[in-house]
Amino acid sequence: MPLRETCCSVCDFILEYDTPRIVLIKNKKVGLINRLVQLVILSYIIGWVLIWRKGYQDFDSIVSSVIIKVKGVAFVNSSGFGERLWDSADYIIPPEQESSFFVMTNLIRTENQTQGHCPELPKNGFNCTSDSNCTAGLIDPHSSGVLTGKCVTFNEGVKTCEVLAWCPLESQTVFPNPALLGGAENFTVLIKNNIRFPQFNFSKRNILPNISASYLKTCVFNRTKEPYCPIFRLGDIVRETGDKFQELALQGGVIGILIKWNCNLDRSASECVPQYTFQRLDNRNVDETVSPGYNFRYAKYYENSAGKETRTLIKAYGIRFEVEVFGKAGKFNIIPTMISIGSGIALLGMGTVLCDMIILHLLKKRNYYKEKKYKYVEDYERGIDDADDD
Amino acid sequence: MPLRETCCSVCDFILEYDTPRIVLIKNKKVGLINRLVQLVILSYIIGWVLIWRKGYQDFDSIVSSVIIKVKGVAFVNSSGFGERLWDSADYIIPPEQESSFFVMTNLIRTENQTQGHCPELPKNGFNCTSDSNCTAGLIDPHSSGVLTGKCVTFNEGVKTCEVLAWCPLESQTVFPNPALLGGAENFTVLIKNNIRFPQFNFSKRNILPNISASYLKTCVFNRTKEPYCPIFRLGDIVRETGDKFQELALQGGVIGILIKWNCNLDRSASECVPQYTFQRLDNRNVDETVSPGYNFRYAKYYENSAGKETRTLIKAYGIRFEVEVFGKAGKFNIIPTMISIGSGIALLGMGTVLCDMIILHLLKKRNYYKEKKYKYVEDYERGIDDADDD
Amino acid sequence: MPLRETCCSVCDFILEYDTPRIVLIKNKKVGLINRLVQLVILSYIIGWVLIWRKGYQDFDSIVSSVIIKVKGVAFVNSSGFGERLWDSADYIIPPEQESSFFVMTNLIRTENQTQGHCPELPKNGFNCTSDSNCTAGLIDPHSSGVLTGKCVTFNEGVKTCEVLAWCPLESQTVFPNPALLGGAENFTVLIKNNIRFPQFNFSKRNILPNISASYLKTCVFNRTKEPYCPIFRLGDIVRETGDKFQELALQGGVIGILIKWNCNLDRSASECVPQYTFQRLDNRNVDETVSPGYNFRYAKYYENSAGKETRTLIKAYGIRFEVEVFGKAGKFNIIPTMISIGSGIALLGMGTVLCDMIILHLLKKRNYYKEKKYKYVEDYERGIDDADDD
Repeated sequence: MPLRETCCSVCDFILEYDTPRIVLIKNKKVGLINRLVQLVILSYIIGWVLIWRKGYQDFDSIVSSVIIKVKGVAFVNSSGFGERLWDSADYIIPPEQESSFFVMTNLIRTENQTQGHCPELPKNGFNCTSDSNCTAGLIDPHSSGVLTGKCVTFNEGVKTCEVLAWCPLESQTVFPNPALLGGAENFTVLIKNNIRFPQFNFSKRNILPNISASYLKTCVFNRTKEPYCPIFRLGDIVRETGDKFQELALQGGVIGILIKWNCNLDRSASECVPQYTFQRLDNRNVDETVSPGYNFRYAKYYENSAGKETRTLIKAYGIRFEVEVFGKAGKFNIIPTMISIGSGIALLGMGTVLCDMIILHLLKKRNYYKEKKYKYVEDYERGIDDADDD
Repeated sequence: MPLRETCCSVCDFILEYDTPRIVLIKNKKVGLINRLVQLVILSYIIGWVLIWRKGYQDFDSIVSSVIIKVKGVAFVNSSGFGERLWDSADYIIPPEQESSFFVMTNLIRTENQTQGHCPELPKNGFNCTSDSNCTAGLIDPHSSGVLTGKCVTFNEGVKTCEVLAWCPLESQTVFPNPALLGGAENFTVLIKNNIRFPQFNFSKRNILPNISASYLKTCVFNRTKEPYCPIFRLGDIVRETGDKFQELALQGGVIGILIKWNCNLDRSASECVPQYTFQRLDNRNVDETVSPGYNFRYAKYYENSAGKETRTLIKAYGIRFEVEVFGKAGKFNIIPTMISIGSGIALLGMGTVLCDMIILHLLKKRNYYKEKKYKYVEDYERGIDDADDD
Repeated sequence: MPLRETCCSVCDFILEYDTPRIVLIKNKKVGLINRLVQLVILSYIIGWVLIWRKGYQDFDSIVSSVIIKVKGVAFVNSSGFGERLWDSADYIIPPEQESSFFVMTNLIRTENQTQGHCPELPKNGFNCTSDSNCTAGLIDPHSSGVLTGKCVTFNEGVKTCEVLAWCPLESQTVFPNPALLGGAENFTVLIKNNIRFPQFNFSKRNILPNISASYLKTCVFNRTKEPYCPIFRLGDIVRETGDKFQELALQGGVIGILIKWNCNLDRSASECVPQYTFQRLDNRNVDETVSPGYNFRYAKYYENSAGKETRTLIKAYGIRFEVEVFGKAGKFNIIPTMISIGSGIALLGMGTVLCDMIILHLLKKRNYYKEKKYKYVEDYERGIDDADDD
C-alpha cells in the first residue's frame, strides 16, 4: 500500500477509527463452548455484580448515635443486706457510657473498710509461723496490702502476715448463688438509635414514624410479634443468645446488641428498618478458672462519725451490654453502574482466551485455524516477499 | 503459508511477538464518535481517577487519641438549692471517658432518700381504694419499688399502693425551666487530638506548631477568625448545629464534634490541618413523648448520723458530646499510579465496543465494513477453498 | 465474499466464534521486550496479588470483646496523706469502661471543700486593691467561682477578689514529684479478648487453649519469653513504648495496647495467635505548657456532721490505656481467586500496548510492521477498489 500524503495528518488521526480484525469461525463445538462461557460470565455480571451486590448503586456508610435508658427495680432480701430495693441509679455503673451499659446482677459487699492493719487472707505465700516469714514493706501483686512484717492470728490455728490495707479485707470468695439481683431479668432497656447516611442526606431513627407514644409505653420487643419495638427485656436478650439469664447473672458476661440498617434508598424510606440481633461476646465456658465472667470492684466512700474515711467495697458481677450499629445504604448512581457494566464487558474477553486455547491446541484442525488467526511476519528482508500470505 | 521448521521452538516462542491486526477505517462520523468517546474516558481517568480521587497516591487511615478538658463554673440560685456553685468535678459525669464527655445542664434532685416504705406516685395502675388492690411483692416495670400490699394515703383524696423503695420518691416530674445550669453555655472545652498515619510515619496534633502557649490561654474557636484554636465554647458548638443552647439545656441531647484530617503528604506538612464540624446526633424533635432529650439518674451515697445509708438521687439532663476523628492521608506511590493508568487504558477499549456497534449495525455501508473487519472461516473442507477472501 | 443465505441466523450466531486476528512478528528485540514485560506482570500477579496479598482468599473482619482486670496495690506515705494503701477500687476511675482503663498515678487532693466564700487564687485578673476592682456576679472562664464583689486578703500583702466557690480552693499548683502512686509500675492487667470471624464461624480468645490455669496465675507478658501470656505489667508496657514509667506517672499520658489477629484459616487454627504492641498515643513533649499529660478532676461527696455537703476534690493524673483489637482472617475461596487471575490476564494485555508503541514508532522497519498490522479502509467508493491491499 502506498502511503497517502495528507495535508492535515492530525485531522486524519482524529477522523479515523481502528477496530481489531476478527476471524469468525463457524464451528459448532467451539461456538457452543464460546457462548456457554459468555453465558456464565453474563449471568455472573447480571446476577452477582448487578443484582446481588447491587453494582448499580452508590453506597454510603452509617453515622449513628445511641441513647440508652434502663428501667426496673429489683428486690433483695438476703441475710447480709436485709430488705433492700435496687433501682437503676444503684445497679448501672458508671451511670453514663457512650454506647454500652453495665447492669449489676450479683455482688459481694464488704462494709466499713478503713485504712488499718489486719491479717492477710490465708493464701499461698502469706501463711506464716513467725514474724521472720513476713518481710516488712513487701508488696506482692497478689497481696491485699503492704506487709507490716508481723505474723498475726487470722483465725484459730491459722497465722498469716499482717498487712496495711483497707480492713477488714474482702473475705467472701464465693459469689452468692442464686444471684442477688436475679430480678434484673425483668428490667427493660429503651434503646434510642438515630442514624444518618450523610451522602444521601437521609436520616431515620429506630422509633419508626408509625409507632405511637402510647404503644411505646407498653410494648416489649419480640422477634416475631413486635420486631420494631425499641424496648427490650434483658431476660429476652439473654435467652436469644442461647444462655440462661440466672446462670449468666451469677458471674456476669458481655453481650452484644447489634442493630443492622441495610437500606435500599431506591425503594420507599419506610422499608429502611432496623434489625436487631443479640450475641454473647465473651467466652461462654464457665470452667475457666481465671476470673471467669465479668466483674470489677468499686467503692463508695463515706466519712464516719470520727471524721475518718471509710468505704464500702463492692465486687460487682454483671452483664455488660454493648450496642453496635452497622449497615449501609445504597442508591442508584450512573457512575458505579457504568463501572460494573464496563468491567463486566472486559470479563467477556475471558471467554475468547479460553476458546482460543481449545481451538488452537485441542482441535484436529488446529493448524488450519492457526493459519487463519495468525499472520506470520518474519524480520528478514525476504520476509517482506512471502508475508503477503492472506 | 508453509510451517517453518525450527530447531528451537521455545526460543522461537520467546522471541516472537503477537499483536492484534487492526482495520483502520477512515470515516468522519465514526472517527469523530470514537475520539469523542475516548475523550470522555480519558477525561474521566485524568479528571476523576487521577486528579479528583488522587489515583496516583497510596492512602493510609488515621490513628488518633483524644484528651478532653472542660473548664468553667456555673452559679445556681434556686429555691431548692440555695446559692451553689458548680465546677467541672460536679457537672462532668463520669469524670473520665475515652472520647466523649457529658455536661450536666439541668437536674432534678431528691435528697435524703433512705430505704423505707412510702406511697407510690399516683400513676396508672397504682391508685387504690383498699389493700386488696395492691398485690404484695409485685414488681412492675413502671413502679418505683416493690409493693407491700397496703393501700395508703398519698395526699388528700388520693390513695396509692405502698412500696418498699428509696423514700421519699422522686416527685418532681417536670424539669426546671430555665435550665439550672444554663451557665454551661460559657464553659469551654480544650480538645487535644494527636493523630498518626502509621504507614507514612507521620504524626501531628491539633495544637499546630505555630500556636503559642499564651495564645492557647486566651483563644476561643471561631470558624472564620480562629479556625485552628482547639478551645471551644459550648454555646458556640451548639449554635453551629442550629440549636439554641438554652432550649437544648432543658432536656439535653447528643452532639458530635467531628475532626477531619485530610492530608496530602505530597505537599507541605503545614497544610495538613484539622477541620472541625459540629452536628446534632440525636433527634431534634422535642414533641417526642417517650423520654425526649438525654438524661440519666445517678446517686451520691452518704451515711447519715444514725449510720444508715442515705442517698441523693440526681436525674441529670445534659449534653453528651462525642468527639469523632476521621480522615486519611495520601502520598505519591508508583503502584497505585500504574494500576490507575492500567485500568484506564483497559477502559479505553470500551470506546471500540461502542463504535463497533455503530459501524456494523447502524451505518449504511455496514456490510462493506463487516467484510473488512471479519474473515469468515467455514468449518468444512470446501471452506478451506473459499476462505481466502481477503 | 458473497453473503451466505441461512435459514436460521440465530443458530448461526450461537454456533460461530469470533477471535481477533493476530499478526505474529518474529523480531528478537521486540519479542524479548514483550516477554520481559509479560514476565514482570506475571510475577506481579503471582507474587504480589496471589501470594503476598493472598488474592486467592476471601477475607472477613474481626468482631471482638475485651474484658480488663487490673491488679495491684500501692503504698503511699506522704506528709499530706499519712500512710495509705491504694487498691484497684481506689485508682481505677471510672470503675468500668468498654475497652480502656485509667490508672491514677499521681494526684492533688483538696479535702473538706464546702460551698462558701474565700479569696480567689492570686492570678491574672483577680488581684485587687479595693472592692471596686471586683464585679459582683462576674463569672470568668478562668475563675474558680462567682465573684461576690468584695476584695479580701489572700495572704500577707496580697489581696484578691472574693469568690463563692467550693472552699478552700485547690491551692497546690504543682504535682507531687516523685509521683505518689509510682508503685503502679508493678500493677498487672489481665486482658481477656474474645474474637470472632462471623463469616467463617471461627472464634478464639487470647487465652490460648494450651495455657493452663496455673500458668495464668504466675505468668507475666514478655515479648521474647512469654509472648502469649495475657497478663501485662504496666511498667513493661510503658517501657516498650520508649518512655520511663516514673516520668510518665508524674503528669500522665495515653497509651495504646494494640492486639493484632492476622489469621490464615487455610492453615491450622493454632497458628492464629494474637500479637501485642504498645504505643504512646498522646504527645510525648512535656515542654507543652497548656495542660500537658493527662489529668482530670473528680470529687467524693460527704455529708459532714452538721449535715452540710462537703467534698474531697481530687485532681487525678494518670495513664489511660486504650485496648484496640484489629485484624482479619483469610480463607481460600474460588470467586476471589478467579477475579484475581482474571484481572491478571487483563493486565497481560498491557504488554501489547507497550510493545506496539515500540514496534510502530521506534523501530527502523516501523512502516513495514504498520502495513502488516493495519488494514486501511477508505470511506469512498473508490476506496472499495483499492482497499484490497493485503
